[in-house]
Amino acid sequence: MKRTLLSVFTLGFILVLGSPATAQTVDSLPSWNEGKAKQSIIEFVATVTEKGSPDFVPPAERIAVFDNDGTLWAERPMYFQLLFALDRVRVLAPQHPEWKDQEPFASVLRGDVKGAMAEGMTSVAEIIMGTHAGMTTAEFEAVVNDWIATARHPSTKRPYTEMVYQPMLELLDYLRANGFKTFIVSGGGIEFMRPWAEKVYGVPPEQVIGSSIKVRFEMRDGEPVLVRLPELDFYDDKEGKPVAIHQQIGRRPIAAFGNSDGDLQMLQWTTAGQGPRYALYVHHTDAEREWAYDRKASMGRLDNGLDEAEAKGWTVVDMKQDWKVIFPKEKK
Amino acid sequence: MKRTLLSVFTLGFILVLGSPATAQTVDSLPSWNEGKAKQSIIEFVATVTEKGSPDFVPPAERIAVFDNDGTLWAERPMYFQLLFALDRVRVLAPQHPEWKDQEPFASVLRGDVKGAMAEGMTSVAEIIMGTHAGMTTAEFEAVVNDWIATARHPSTKRPYTEMVYQPMLELLDYLRANGFKTFIVSGGGIEFMRPWAEKVYGVPPEQVIGSSIKVRFEMRDGEPVLVRLPELDFYDDKEGKPVAIHQQIGRRPIAAFGNSDGDLQMLQWTTAGQGPRYALYVHHTDAEREWAYDRKASMGRLDNGLDEAEAKGWTVVDMKQDWKVIFPKEKK
Repeated sequence: MKRTLLSVFTLGFILVLGSPATAQTVDSLPSWNEGKAKQSIIEFVATVTEKGSPDFVPPAERIAVFDNDGTLWAERPMYFQLLFALDRVRVLAPQHPEWKDQEPFASVLRGDVKGAMAEGMTSVAEIIMGTHAGMTTAEFEAVVNDWIATARHPSTKRPYTEMVYQPMLELLDYLRANGFKTFIVSGGGIEFMRPWAEKVYGVPPEQVIGSSIKVRFEMRDGEPVLVRLPELDFYDDKEGKPVAIHQQIGRRPIAAFGNSDGDLQMLQWTTAGQGPRYALYVHHTDAEREWAYDRKASMGRLDNGLDEAEAKGWTVVDMKQDWKVIFPKEKK
Repeated sequence: MKRTLLSVFTLGFILVLGSPATAQTVDSLPSWNEGKAKQSIIEFVATVTEKGSPDFVPPAERIAVFDNDGTLWAERPMYFQLLFALDRVRVLAPQHPEWKDQEPFASVLRGDVKGAMAEGMTSVAEIIMGTHAGMTTAEFEAVVNDWIATARHPSTKRPYTEMVYQPMLELLDYLRANGFKTFIVSGGGIEFMRPWAEKVYGVPPEQVIGSSIKVRFEMRDGEPVLVRLPELDFYDDKEGKPVAIHQQIGRRPIAAFGNSDGDLQMLQWTTAGQGPRYALYVHHTDAEREWAYDRKASMGRLDNGLDEAEAKGWTVVDMKQDWKVIFPKEKK
């Protein structure tokens, strides 16, 4: 018995002794090509986690915030939540006979998505409210879970949860392994993301921040329910992102990750704090493996953000150059 | 060397083997008298943490929500945040000469608090907006930190952070030691609680939910700031509590702790979920060591809640009977 114990403990001791050396040689970001972007991440993490360093940041303050659309998963041909809403219009149409004469629903039902979007954000808001409200929160969650499990991206035919960026999944894991608490701060709907964000990104519901519609507490047959109302509660984009971060996290993040001008204020707010700060833009430069767009895009435009990143020395990821793979399960 | 290693490991092994037995004999709730209340807590925690049990709840879902005023700290002679606001009226008066002719401020400045409150919640709202808005979030945080460090309770002369309930501090620790994530869900202001909640309760800012006023993102001399506006953002009381829990946590809690009818919907929402659930009311029954009030109180009324607790078998803590001490540092 004693001999066995000794062996077990000796083995344990060797493993423990071995781990710091091992950690340095294991690549936590294998889908990132060697280069400035990858190096800047590793250096920042080393800086804030080195005990005794003047730039050491206690784990409780290691808050990292990530945009979702275009930063953690793709956003072409349009925001995936909008594709979800368009699918919902078709599914719900039999319960809404009035929709066949009512825009933007009528155009959606005729298959004319471009026509449906004629009024821009007004059209989008009507489609969202018409498909996301008028049910309990539990009912909506079931609808999202069903869609995310069965729907396929129109061009790649993959499930949407496989349209996430493998290098960003590694980055989320790497930050958490270094004591960071990772949050999503998205213009998308909180309740559209929460049902699957924990499984796909490792981000629990309470760390998912986004846009929301109002809900109302009601008693139905003695049971409390929350009913979703067709009324905007909060639009989590641009100036809204620092506001939401403040109201819901209550600490200024030390690292922020985005891909568009909608994330600019979040990156400004993050980097304006004291001590070491990190900001990164994902730049969509890979028309072959993903999509290429920036200054002139109607969704996910990155224009002022590119200029400010240049001026302030923020990291800009060139997807084509910096990422070995884009999506999970690709060959490296 | 080998001999030393063996000793170290043997010692480690004994400590490891010894810990389960030790855990059962250590009392994690030493300020709670033996009785139904204490026993119900311990049984609930044992139920949800026992691996292999059908009632086992994974740590990620062990969400516990606590009201603050009257549940974690006292709320007499009035909500402490209101005492803070009254102090602020006096401090800010020189910058607001108009206040000496303007109610409710004029009454406050004359020392007539009762007169100032003549219009009830309308008066309260005016005092809150007049003292909590019109500055940046960083400025407000500094004001709260200064007040909480220096102000004293009018009758006990203690710092407000020592007007917290020792048995509830132990309960927070006990739940966290058993894998629970503890949240505050208060009618009080988020930004009034966050500066000290982590130090006093061990609850980090991102787990403090409460009422809030709106804030606006602005650039001042090239630096981003958040400015507090005199406009209600969310009132986190009654029906608002389940709404806030849903919007900010996104999971239904499995345990809820309150002291008033303002917490009733939170307890209803929590206990209506599937699987094991726990609800507890703190009943203020100790006029000698704290205060005694319930069905007829104007602040912190517990009336419908007492009836529903009785009907549904929720735990009701009798402060006089169930708690050995009320505040920290009292002799047991």
